[in-house]
Amino acid sequence: MSLTVADVVDGGRVLRLSWANGTTARFHAEWLRDNALDPSTRSPVNGQRLLTIDQIPADTVVTAVGITGDGGAVAVTFEPQTHRTVFSAEWLFAHRYDVARVDEPGWTRPDVERWDNQSMQHRIPTATFDDISTDRAALADWLEAVDRYGFAVLHGMPTESGRLCDVAELFGYVRVTNYGRWFDVKAEVNPTNLAYTNLGLQGHTDNPYRDPVPTLQLLACLENTVDGGSSSVVDGFACAARLQQEDPRGFALLAGHPARFEYAGSADVQLQAKRPVIELGPDGELLAVRFNNRSAAPFVDVPFDDMPAYLAAYRRFSSYIDDPAMQVTFTLRPGDLFIVDNTRVFHARQAFSGSGSRWLQGCYADIDGLRSTLAVLRRGLAADAFVGRIVDVFERRGAEEYLGEDVTMAEHMLQSAALANAEGADPELVVAALLHDIGHFTGEFGTYSPETTIDHRHEWEGTRVLTGYLPPRVVDCVRLHVAAKRYLCAVESDYFAKLSAASVHTLELQGGPMSADEVAAFEAEPHHLDAVRVRRWDEGGKAAGRDVPPLNHYLPLLSGLVLGA
Amino acid sequence: MSLTVADVVDGGRVLRLSWANGTTARFHAEWLRDNALDPSTRSPVNGQRLLTIDQIPADTVVTAVGITGDGGAVAVTFEPQTHRTVFSAEWLFAHRYDVARVDEPGWTRPDVERWDNQSMQHRIPTATFDDISTDRAALADWLEAVDRYGFAVLHGMPTESGRLCDVAELFGYVRVTNYGRWFDVKAEVNPTNLAYTNLGLQGHTDNPYRDPVPTLQLLACLENTVDGGSSSVVDGFACAARLQQEDPRGFALLAGHPARFEYAGSADVQLQAKRPVIELGPDGELLAVRFNNRSAAPFVDVPFDDMPAYLAAYRRFSSYIDDPAMQVTFTLRPGDLFIVDNTRVFHARQAFSGSGSRWLQGCYADIDGLRSTLAVLRRGLAADAFVGRIVDVFERRGAEEYLGEDVTMAEHMLQSAALANAEGADPELVVAALLHDIGHFTGEFGTYSPETTIDHRHEWEGTRVLTGYLPPRVVDCVRLHVAAKRYLCAVESDYFAKLSAASVHTLELQGGPMSADEVAAFEAEPHHLDAVRVRRWDEGGKAAGRDVPPLNHYLPLLSGLVLGA
Repeated sequence: MSLTVADVVDGGRVLRLSWANGTTARFHAEWLRDNALDPSTRSPVNGQRLLTIDQIPADTVVTAVGITGDGGAVAVTFEPQTHRTVFSAEWLFAHRYDVARVDEPGWTRPDVERWDNQSMQHRIPTATFDDISTDRAALADWLEAVDRYGFAVLHGMPTESGRLCDVAELFGYVRVTNYGRWFDVKAEVNPTNLAYTNLGLQGHTDNPYRDPVPTLQLLACLENTVDGGSSSVVDGFACAARLQQEDPRGFALLAGHPARFEYAGSADVQLQAKRPVIELGPDGELLAVRFNNRSAAPFVDVPFDDMPAYLAAYRRFSSYIDDPAMQVTFTLRPGDLFIVDNTRVFHARQAFSGSGSRWLQGCYADIDGLRSTLAVLRRGLAADAFVGRIVDVFERRGAEEYLGEDVTMAEHMLQSAALANAEGADPELVVAALLHDIGHFTGEFGTYSPETTIDHRHEWEGTRVLTGYLPPRVVDCVRLHVAAKRYLCAVESDYFAKLSAASVHTLELQGGPMSADEVAAFEAEPHHLDAVRVRRWDEGGKAAGRDVPPLNHYLPLLSGLVLGA
Repeated sequence: MSLTVADVVDGGRVLRLSWANGTTARFHAEWLRDNALDPSTRSPVNGQRLLTIDQIPADTVVTAVGITGDGGAVAVTFEPQTHRTVFSAEWLFAHRYDVARVDEPGWTRPDVERWDNQSMQHRIPTATFDDISTDRAALADWLEAVDRYGFAVLHGMPTESGRLCDVAELFGYVRVTNYGRWFDVKAEVNPTNLAYTNLGLQGHTDNPYRDPVPTLQLLACLENTVDGGSSSVVDGFACAARLQQEDPRGFALLAGHPARFEYAGSADVQLQAKRPVIELGPDGELLAVRFNNRSAAPFVDVPFDDMPAYLAAYRRFSSYIDDPAMQVTFTLRPGDLFIVDNTRVFHARQAFSGSGSRWLQGCYADIDGLRSTLAVLRRGLAADAFVGRIVDVFERRGAEEYLGEDVTMAEHMLQSAALANAEGADPELVVAALLHDIGHFTGEFGTYSPETTIDHRHEWEGTRVLTGYLPPRVVDCVRLHVAAKRYLCAVESDYFAKLSAASVHTLELQGGPMSADEVAAFEAEPHHLDAVRVRRWDEGGKAAGRDVPPLNHYLPLLSGLVLGA
């Protein structure tokens, strides 16, 4: 997504950008300065901001702006502090805030998928304990189900006491409560909690009397020989949407007034919380639902005149929870476990008979840790897949002819990397040299031939392939390695003479030596000197029959650089 | 707070009540039915509700209502399910919702006290580790400071690694995160977090990129020989109030749009949260603040047109955090610890020099557990104090004359208890017999004499003294023991003849034998039969020189019954 236009407007207080897809967005100079990504603003080690807001003048303006030649980035100069920084086109697009917004409250982020019996009963997200313990991709899929649907089932758990905590520790941390690190759910004679009876339990979220509420609950089955006692889950976000559809005022009332919850079932606790049944963020995003008939305290925060309609809405919401059309049902056998997003999905239990035994164990954890682990797994899986793709493309296409030179494409890139290595370049530059022409492999045009009459812009294709997988400095070297040739031809009088015939041909297609303006823009690129070094190894990597290390030699180096690996 | 009027209005859908202090409030029949406290609605063992809302007809109405003779309770009959239950006057007063409400957002509950440098620097809530480990009252005071002010300091911690978790476990549970159960805060060369440098840190809440955020943070000092590095805390709720005062639109903007926070400082985490800088509940209560310049991500949820004013408000809020007038400052020495409510109080660190060493350890916990422990401690302390008051009043006043009878007040009550014991009555009734006349001790009028011409209503004074400390059945027996005399005189033809002369005198002051209506109301009291038994022991406990066990004999029984003990 390259940038096409950058205008400074409103006396420098606003930067207006357009992208190649036609999107336009404005950014405030002050916002841009605060969110700069350069090493003087954000720690290169941990990504944290090094400045406080008072270190940025309130009257910060943009005084100069320039889109890079390929539209991949924009350089911005701020005053009065004369700070110059570069934002990538992608980053700006992803973080634009000059957008249309959802007006209707109750919306959810795109990766939340609501469900009911019809859409979910026959595709319950399920995995085995072995799978998710040993296979990162299986674990990522299972966690993604929790993120997307708010629940998932697991089979094949060891039926040993406390082992459900092992599941929680695959992605996060057990939240210890007054019930312990984990707790038994068995029928008891004088239960401290109605869960410890054989009564049915209406669909509910657990512990709404806690604040913060545990955001994940795991329930594992160790024994089950009773009649009944099957489990069901209901998507509370689907219930909220249904309420909004069928009774908009009721939705507004349940979201607009706090409910109260309390638990003092044993002598050592007296837990109380005041939070709404339907919780919206200030922007109307649906954040959480809470419902529990057992621990609901008297609702005293609803004005008298609103109470009848509030109770009617509460009653309607309750009826959805009890509606089989909303429920997904399953029976837990020993070794089964289910996990619910306790801010979203209600879980219920049918009554069961006193004969036989039913022994579950529960524990709590938090979903922020789950989402973090999921993101890290996705990054890692993507990194693995990226290295796999690089190897694959070298194998499939490396033997192809390179621009009519005496080397194949693979030989050219391996020779360039070997030259970088020989100069003692750091790993990022070695990898940049190794992959600088990767766009020839992956682009639709392949490499150049003497008959080629258009610029394939393979450096742009390479940028696309590498962005997000390798550090920005590597990507910049790849993005700029063609520009570096045009630059060197402009600033070094003897450089042109060093080009191969094929390179002279493509130089022409690429625009010839740079103009003075282009030279200035190039020199403003933070990594332009690195790109120049890569370019020199590029020119040097075209000698037939040179003995250089194979691709395997570089894979540890490459894997070590891949972001998120 | 006795009830004076109970009217059924709006066709039975509403009950209108008035109390002796002039307060009037309406309750909906449906709400009352749902919140009934009887054993068929709430489990007597664990207090949880046994009904779901759909088990209560939406057209529930009140068809009969009657205030008890002393105004202490109201009996209510609901139809169509013909359910009869009793609510105490106190409970209804505490749970009335027909009240005026705060319109202005940003209010806090009454036990939150805001502070700044001037009001707090010289009264920092402080305790020692020994004190709070061994003295429940000291622990309660320290926890109450956290609840009220959002922070407290502790001296005399053992300077051993990990011991700060012991402090967390005095009141709750450590929240384990990716930083571990606890974490070191030392200057590092390549820190994963800017906290692990010697840079100053602007006042902030910790981990705003977590959701749920850890609601408590503890920081303990194990070593400190550096220059600088002193700590300060700022009341975020005071900052919010100041913003609301000085820039109401800015307050609305910070509360009205989510901010974003993120942390990916090490390879194993990618934490993100979207929550506002100022978080209000749906009723406008100020629930939390979040601020952290290091982990604030680009704010992309603020509409373009609001962004300048949003950033101005953010900037102003930041300036309050940096304002010495808002800061309370202290230096942590080895063995010192401070705790902050991480949803309210910002903590900051001055930069320190590289020479010497500074070693802190931090851990997280949650404030719901702290508040629960505080409530339980208060109950326990109140229970201890209650038993102490009973012993004290027996000692100070037990020898006083009882109504002109041949026994002292203490002898009368001990004899009544002995009679109950001899009949094999259960502990609640023995204690009711022991304490039935406690109102004579504590009321301003003392006991009766033959010259008394007004009803002292000592049973009502006794009810006041015992309510909340002893189970409702005990309190009801005390409350009804005078009514029981009037009842027995009405329904047992020979009962009047059993009364002592003094009791005949007071019977007249108390209203004489009950009318038929009064009898019916009395028989509707759930514990009226228990009260009748207590009354008979009362009449029997007036014989001079009887050898009965002393008060000490009953103290274990009494302590065992005290609520919250």
